[in-house]
Formats: sequence, structure tokens, C-alpha cells
Amino acid sequence: MKSSIDVRDFRLTETVVKGGCAAKLPAGQLRQLLAGLELKRAPELAVGIETLDDACLWDLGNGSYLVQTLDFFTPIVDDAEDFGAIAAANAISDVYAMGGQPRTALTILAFPAQTLPLELLEPLMRGALSKIHEAGACLAGGHTIDDDTLKLGFSVSGFVAKDKAWTNAGARPGDVLILTKGLGTGTITTALKVREAKEAWVKAATESMKTLNRAADLISDFTVHAATDITGFGLAGHSLQMAQASGCAFEISMSALPTIDGAKECLKAEMLNRAHRTNAEYAEGKVVYRDLDEIGRWLTVDPQTSGGLLLSIPASQGSRALARLRERFPSAAIIGKVREMNLTDGHCVDFIT
Amino acid sequence: MKSSIDVRDFRLTETVVKGGCAAKLPAGQLRQLLAGLELKRAPELAVGIETLDDACLWDLGNGSYLVQTLDFFTPIVDDAEDFGAIAAANAISDVYAMGGQPRTALTILAFPAQTLPLELLEPLMRGALSKIHEAGACLAGGHTIDDDTLKLGFSVSGFVAKDKAWTNAGARPGDVLILTKGLGTGTITTALKVREAKEAWVKAATESMKTLNRAADLISDFTVHAATDITGFGLAGHSLQMAQASGCAFEISMSALPTIDGAKECLKAEMLNRAHRTNAEYAEGKVVYRDLDEIGRWLTVDPQTSGGLLLSIPASQGSRALARLRERFPSAAIIGKVREMNLTDGHCVDFIT
Repeated sequence: MKSSIDVRDFRLTETVVKGGCAAKLPAGQLRQLLAGLELKRAPELAVGIETLDDACLWDLGNGSYLVQTLDFFTPIVDDAEDFGAIAAANAISDVYAMGGQPRTALTILAFPAQTLPLELLEPLMRGALSKIHEAGACLAGGHTIDDDTLKLGFSVSGFVAKDKAWTNAGARPGDVLILTKGLGTGTITTALKVREAKEAWVKAATESMKTLNRAADLISDFTVHAATDITGFGLAGHSLQMAQASGCAFEISMSALPTIDGAKECLKAEMLNRAHRTNAEYAEGKVVYRDLDEIGRWLTVDPQTSGGLLLSIPASQGSRALARLRERFPSAAIIGKVREMNLTDGHCVDFIT
Repeated sequence: MKSSIDVRDFRLTETVVKGGCAAKLPAGQLRQLLAGLELKRAPELAVGIETLDDACLWDLGNGSYLVQTLDFFTPIVDDAEDFGAIAAANAISDVYAMGGQPRTALTILAFPAQTLPLELLEPLMRGALSKIHEAGACLAGGHTIDDDTLKLGFSVSGFVAKDKAWTNAGARPGDVLILTKGLGTGTITTALKVREAKEAWVKAATESMKTLNRAADLISDFTVHAATDITGFGLAGHSLQMAQASGCAFEISMSALPTIDGAKECLKAEMLNRAHRTNAEYAEGKVVYRDLDEIGRWLTVDPQTSGGLLLSIPASQGSRALARLRERFPSAAIIGKVREMNLTDGHCVDFIT
């Protein structure tokens, strides 16, 4: 576009109070809301909203599920093209978390035309399209409104063969848990907002958030009992949802957790946002920390934007699956294991040192 | 929910500057943005974003299209349950505009938890669910964020047999144009915001916006050459898009246009919002007004929220199709006809008295 405006002059994170998945409404309150409503469901809806899964699965009657999800949020980084790419990678991730192949994306865009130049739309959508196309999907529609703060996201649909679909409800005792990306995007982007983040940290976090969670094709010959992606509710919240949906308990080893460069420094400097606290409240009583320091605790509830996949895989296949995943996800690690639910203590996730 | 808060104390329209589909970004600017981007498309994508249609059509390879759309906006009325119902009916409408049967809806919710009580979520979603269920669809997921102003919408998907799909690109010379709902939701809700609207007008507009555009099953034995729904760009903008996509010219008779009670009074009192002006700019040069007064001109660009369907039907079937549609849409009317495009004058829609 011809313009005398340099879009790099606009630091997007300065235009919003809360960035990325940290702007989610607290999970506990959402649960409460849904409890009061009567939901009809169709027989074709194999996975709906009851298990807090990443996407819904609709039986097309031809051996495949239609996988549908949507996600959107405020700027998490300053560069429009990076933000567009992250918003797309993050929304697409929920289709990958069900084992699906994304095919269509519809844009959800709220743009503050009074305070930001419309020229920003071009790099924003260019970044998004780069990820949509990389995923093998295409932009098929969307809606834009004029709003006070920038928000971008996508409703993404894809398909998966019924016998290849992953849900968050199938983890089994004896599985190992693999996380595909390092943790720390919440605290690093909080530090970025107040200009306390080193450039290298922001770069590492940005690259991680832009990385597509395209794992299913890498490990198609392995057994995946359950999967989810780690986003706004943090590792603690999403592993809790997966453990509860599966009726199992998880034991996660802090020393095994991959982190993005700078994450621990930022947590040590108390670069926390509201979601750290609401995530900690959500986890309380259901997550147990054994001898963990405060930084470790905050890391488990760090709200991720476009975070990694958490995969539950039979222990016998764990290390071979990990080796395969590391071809595309160098930070991937086995972070814990799945156990029988202990009904006496009522908690679902143990974080050990 | 148990609460001492009376949710009726919150007038939702006072919390936003622009309500409903009036908050769309101007169509001309969107066109310009899209022009600069390279879009890949899949062979399965039968209708994408090129023709500015209401929803995309994805060929499932089994004789059916997957129909996908999304829409969201700020409060257009004060009552949370009404707003929820309108937001759902409006989003679902795009599936109906393609002749489809809606099946799944994913929520797009931005909620100002700092300024509105969370108790509002219950009537809001109850209203939405009533319309989702009435349409035969089910709520299958969604995303919520904490935001400065309330926004609600849905990504809706459905299915349609390939030979029953409607697009906005098939109008033919000799067709008549039927509009299923009265015009005027933009000006009446603008008046509501400044407390200049009579209660009866608001009630009529609300009922119209809550009405599902479920027309395909009523007229399944008629030929529908093209269809669209009238929303934020007004009758002028959407009929222009349909005429252009079809390569035809439309002639619309002002005296035949159905209006909601109070619409003309509100326009006379200059209850206009920004979208009236941007819609008028968008239509300029492509829409011609012959001997129309100012109120008539504003009516054609009045931004509709959850407006009616515009259907292009062979003239020989017009009056019988209209009689059928009136069973569910009492305001439905034949408002004009389709002509060959006149290449010399370059305009696509003629509004005559």
C-alpha cells in the first residue's frame, strides 16, 4: 500500500491493557455460567463443550469429523505481522490439538480505526495468511468491526478421520505426557509491555508463538490417547482439564519442564498479569505443589498464547515419539506421567520437583 | 442464578458508542485491504470471499456443501436476553442466506467484567440459545475475553445440498426481488440510544431482528436464483454487492419497500449514525436515486442488524413465493426487478419512487 505512515511506529502492546490469551475470562466463572443453561445437542456432535476440549467434533457420517474452533485476542507483541501470525497459529492450534487438518479460517477482527492507521491491516493479515497457508488452510470469510482496541482471531475448521481424532478425555494410567513447546509466553510478554524484556527473550517467545502445532503428521504411527494445547489457563489449568476429562491424575516434574529463554528471569522479577492469579485460583485444591518454589508455581499457571501441545502417549512409545517431535519442536520434552485418580485426596495434578 | 443484582438495571446500549452492524468497518476500505493480499484457495472452496457473499461454501465431496460464517457486534438493544437472541439470529442468518440448515454455533464473546455484572451472561446466553435451538443448531464451543465493551456473536456452520445452495451471484434479468423484513433497525436503534425512540418502535424493531431468516424450507419448491441478507451495509450496499456479483442491474421501487414502524419518523428526525454516511459513500456512483427525497435515500443505506433476506426469483413465481413467505414474514414484499446491466452508465442499482 502507498502510504507515508510507517506502521512500525505503532507499538501494538501499548494500545491494550491485557494481551493475548491472558485476556480470557476466568475459567471458574465460565463453568458457573454454563451450569445454569440448558444445552440441546445433536447426535452428530461427538465432542461439544462439556469436556472443555479445544474444539468440537461433528460426525459428517462419512468416516470423518468436522473439527471447529475459534479464538481471538488483543496484541501480545508489537509488530503487526508477528501478531497476525501468532493470532492465526494460536487459533489453528485447536484443530491440531484434535489431530485434525485445518482447511478454512474466518477472520474475527476488531480494529480501532480512530487510533491506529488502517495501513496496519495489511501486515496484520499478511502475517495471518502466512500461517493459514503454511497450515494448508485458506481464508474463507470473516467479520470486522470498529472497536476501541485491536483484537484478531479466527474461526478455524478442519477434518480428521474418526479413528485418528484426539480428544482431551482419553489419557490412561501408564501414559507419559509430552509438551511440545517451552513455557513462559505470559510472563515474557508482560515484561515486554513494560519494556523490561530483553530483545532475545521476546524474539524467542515470538518464534515459539508463531510455530504451528503441526504434530499429528509427525507421529501418525504412534498412539496418542489424549491431547490438548496449552493456552490461557496455563499448564496447570489445561492439564487439570485433561486429567479431569480423562478421569486420571497427572504427575508433572518441574525439572523436566521446557521454558522459553527469559521466562524464569521474568517470573523472578514478578512480571505477572491478572491471569496468573486467576489461573492459580482456578487450580487451587485440584493441583498440588510438592516442595516447589514460587517461581515454579507461577510457571505452571503462566498464561500461554499459542502454547505447545500436551500429548498423552503410552510410556513404551514415549521416547521414540519425543525424538520424532523434536524434528519440528526442539524444546519438546517428556514432562510427566499419568496415574490412576486417587479418590481420597481429590486433586488431579501433582507438580513435583 | 442467585444474585441481588437486577440485570435490568443495566441499559446495554449506554455502554457502547456504536451498536450492532453499524459498527462494521466501511466496505470500501475492506475491499482496498483485500486487494493487496495474495489469497491461496483450495479446490473444495466453491464460494470464498471474492464475491462478498454471506458465507463460504466448502464442497464436502458427498453432494453437500459445508456453509460457514461468523458475525459479532456490540449491543443494539438494552435487554440482555433480546441482545443475545438478536446476535444469534443475525449470525445464523448468513447460513440461511446460502439456503443452508444451521447445525453448530461457536460463541464469540467479549465481556467487560469491570463494568457489567457477570450475571448478565446468563440472560445473554439464554437469549442466544433460544434462537440457536429454534434454528435446529447447537452450541458447540466458543471463546470469551475480558474487554472494554460488550460484544457478542457466533461462528455458525451448516450444510446444504449442492443443488439447493443459494449464492449472491445468480440473479438473472427477468427475476423479481423479494425482501423478507422491513427496513429501519439502524435508525430506530440509533434513536433508542438517545432515548428518542417510542417503545412500540423499539419493540417492533426488536421482534424483527429476533426473527430467524428461515425461508428456504418455506419456498423449497420455488426457484431462487440468488439470495443475500441485508445487514450493516444496508439495502443499497447489499443489493449492490448482489447485482455486481450477478453481473446484472437492479431496479428497486421505494414505494414497495417494507419499513418497520417508526423508521421514517426516526430518519426524519435525523437519527443517523456513522454507518449511514459510510454506506452512502460506498454506494455513490454505483447506485442511482431517481426523484427520491432525503428520507428515502437514508432508508436505502440504513444499516440493518439481522435484516431480511433479499431473494431473486423468476417473475413467474414471484407472487406465489411471496404468499408463501408471508406465512412467516408478514412484512415480506416484492421490491423490484432484475435487469440487464447497462454498461454505458456504470451503475448497478436504480432506486425509483
